[in-house]
Amino acid sequence: MNRRHFTRVTGLSFTGLWMGATTPQAALGAQSLAVDRGRLEERMRTLATFGANAAGGIDRVAFSDANLAARDWVAELLRDVGFETNTDFAGNLIARKEGTAAGLTPIMFGSHIDSVPGGGNYDGQVGSMGAVEAATVLAETGHSTRHPLEVAFFANEEGGKTGSRALAGEVEPFELEIETASGYTIGEGLRRLGGDPNRLAEARREPASIAAFLELHIEQGAVLDQDGVDIGVVEGIVGIMRWNVTVDGMTNHAGTTPMDRRADAMVGAARFVEAVQRIALEMPGRQVATVGRLVAEPGAPNVIPGRVRMTLEIRDLTMEGIERVFAAIEQESRSLAAQSGLEYAFGRFYVSRAAPTDVRIRDMIERAATGLGLSSSRMPSGAGHDAQSMALLCPVGMIFVPSVAGISHAPEERTELTDIVNGSNVLLGTLLALDELRSL
Amino acid sequence: MNRRHFTRVTGLSFTGLWMGATTPQAALGAQSLAVDRGRLEERMRTLATFGANAAGGIDRVAFSDANLAARDWVAELLRDVGFETNTDFAGNLIARKEGTAAGLTPIMFGSHIDSVPGGGNYDGQVGSMGAVEAATVLAETGHSTRHPLEVAFFANEEGGKTGSRALAGEVEPFELEIETASGYTIGEGLRRLGGDPNRLAEARREPASIAAFLELHIEQGAVLDQDGVDIGVVEGIVGIMRWNVTVDGMTNHAGTTPMDRRADAMVGAARFVEAVQRIALEMPGRQVATVGRLVAEPGAPNVIPGRVRMTLEIRDLTMEGIERVFAAIEQESRSLAAQSGLEYAFGRFYVSRAAPTDVRIRDMIERAATGLGLSSSRMPSGAGHDAQSMALLCPVGMIFVPSVAGISHAPEERTELTDIVNGSNVLLGTLLALDELRSL
Repeated sequence: MNRRHFTRVTGLSFTGLWMGATTPQAALGAQSLAVDRGRLEERMRTLATFGANAAGGIDRVAFSDANLAARDWVAELLRDVGFETNTDFAGNLIARKEGTAAGLTPIMFGSHIDSVPGGGNYDGQVGSMGAVEAATVLAETGHSTRHPLEVAFFANEEGGKTGSRALAGEVEPFELEIETASGYTIGEGLRRLGGDPNRLAEARREPASIAAFLELHIEQGAVLDQDGVDIGVVEGIVGIMRWNVTVDGMTNHAGTTPMDRRADAMVGAARFVEAVQRIALEMPGRQVATVGRLVAEPGAPNVIPGRVRMTLEIRDLTMEGIERVFAAIEQESRSLAAQSGLEYAFGRFYVSRAAPTDVRIRDMIERAATGLGLSSSRMPSGAGHDAQSMALLCPVGMIFVPSVAGISHAPEERTELTDIVNGSNVLLGTLLALDELRSL
Repeated sequence: MNRRHFTRVTGLSFTGLWMGATTPQAALGAQSLAVDRGRLEERMRTLATFGANAAGGIDRVAFSDANLAARDWVAELLRDVGFETNTDFAGNLIARKEGTAAGLTPIMFGSHIDSVPGGGNYDGQVGSMGAVEAATVLAETGHSTRHPLEVAFFANEEGGKTGSRALAGEVEPFELEIETASGYTIGEGLRRLGGDPNRLAEARREPASIAAFLELHIEQGAVLDQDGVDIGVVEGIVGIMRWNVTVDGMTNHAGTTPMDRRADAMVGAARFVEAVQRIALEMPGRQVATVGRLVAEPGAPNVIPGRVRMTLEIRDLTMEGIERVFAAIEQESRSLAAQSGLEYAFGRFYVSRAAPTDVRIRDMIERAATGLGLSSSRMPSGAGHDAQSMALLCPVGMIFVPSVAGISHAPEERTELTDIVNGSNVLLGTLLALDELRSL
């Protein structure tokens, strides 16, 4: 199914589609603003040259020369339209323009322009260019916002969301020693960007100091593309828990041990994997659960495995949802243990808190999409984003556009230009709606 | 359950328990012969000193100094009781004594005295000392056999059954280049034993040149021990086939791919492992099937595996039995593929032919056990043995004694002295029964 075949909701005017607007003229202004498709296309193409590789993707890992050059280029684009650019101690490039109303905190929007090694041309980049385009349209049309605007390009998203997490005061000192794909440690890398790892604490922002944060991003999944939907209204970035799971049986000779006298940890692991899949699929909700790694010991064709070690990962929009799924899996493994004599043990080794988006901003995004004649769908973000860190500080909204076939973190990653234009227009519309609110 | 609690069948005399005996005096002679428990115990203890390690086991890998020293000691024991000892071109130590009847081919019996690295004190050694003891009892009591006797200590059993396979002409030239745990190649090692790798073809024996081969061995499984049975009458050494099994799905982000849109190769592999276990357990027969190794790719906690590679091993007493089990597994995987959209592929990479024992010798072993008041049970040998190579040349018989808890190839490997005595007596009784047959 291709979303181009969908009948669009059209003919609705943008005016009055969002609630809480204060002035009719602002709504009228919003209606008339739209991004420039040609400019957006050209800038996406230019951005793709920084760190371009032979595979048609990019190697623009955080702190690399290509990353620095791309940041300089982006900063220049924003200075050209009246923004003042700065790099904070956490290496975040922040472009700021004051608003017309006194005493308001800024609306922040943006994404990241670093990539994974061997990455594609859309992850982070669509949101970054969409933000630049929104800022450019406002400047070109002489539309001044009431709130100050801050366009953010966060440092080292792909290597641990260092920049956005530093704004929330979440970066641990040990992280600065981690060597990144650039060859530099995170600490060294922050310095290369113009930050200062010794003054990272000063990069922290007060929760009350930002009015809201908006991020446009590619979905990095196949749901929008498969379902033919234009815009994803992100309900939140899912929480994640990961466990090491051990199944203990008895190592034995695969020739001399009859089938009915085995305590085969591989068979126990197989039943576990099947149970994880069944439980996550059948329980109400949109949780996902995955066994991604499995090691059988000793691991020879002619030896019955005595031990299997696996990973279990569960993601859901709420931590309670994760706990519920895990409880069902644990219960099932107790029953598997009772049937088989095998032992199942769980050791949790990773927790990432769920970050719900602001319910009012979800409505604004949906109305902006509808106003543009675009279909939209509410969905979780299964992947992590800078918006997740920002949710610790302020209300956040997140807009997804389709990833062709859901491919991401690869040179084959692709989002259609039309979707980039649509997403940027929704970003712009949502920004204007937010700007008109008296308070969030 | 401990076999000591079993009611023994007792009171039966050895005379007339085997069929095909030709002279009453021979049967009477057999009845009166028995191994010397004290001598057997002492020799087992002495043998255990060659290559003894700190863990209480042995490092007496083929071609090591300890292996050579143990062979010299064993050869001396047999020369002391009138055997002539030789090493053939394949490094097999063969001790021969002529028989009383003209024109008969020899009855061969024996085992191996090399060990795996970090091995125990019983694998190969029980059969070797049982054979020496049987030869010693015959000499001490002045019992001359009609057939020539050949006591064989095969070269490099643990590293590929080189010696016994050379007798059947089965050793490939490339094997001589294989480096063994001793640090020597097999070719160099054979030279160290007194063989000659350049003349290996001359070690080959003609099928008609050996009347029969008998081997006493520890079970290396837990069946006899768990069931409380004294003697295993081996029906054959199982055949083995091994396959590389690949399950192909679609690698995807574990966060952004909903449960109902996955092609998870790990789930496909889990269903396969479960099917293998179920089919091997439920089909009639004593086949075993094992998935011992499993690798999921890419193998990260947060990535849905797109490919899983596994091994499948099936063993059975007949190759047809193996084919039947595989056909059922292959059929089941076609059905799993149809349900899931995953692809299953099989590549066979190993075949070892099944080697049935001689049905008449099975009966002789069983009668010898019964005559001694010992319980016995017919069973496959799930592990490989020199008898497997010998089955290519002549009728073979194989006698198992219990391994405590089924442990083998480890310092904890153990067989009770009483079981060693029982097995050696059954070996002696079977040997005498064989000797009385006009032809096999």
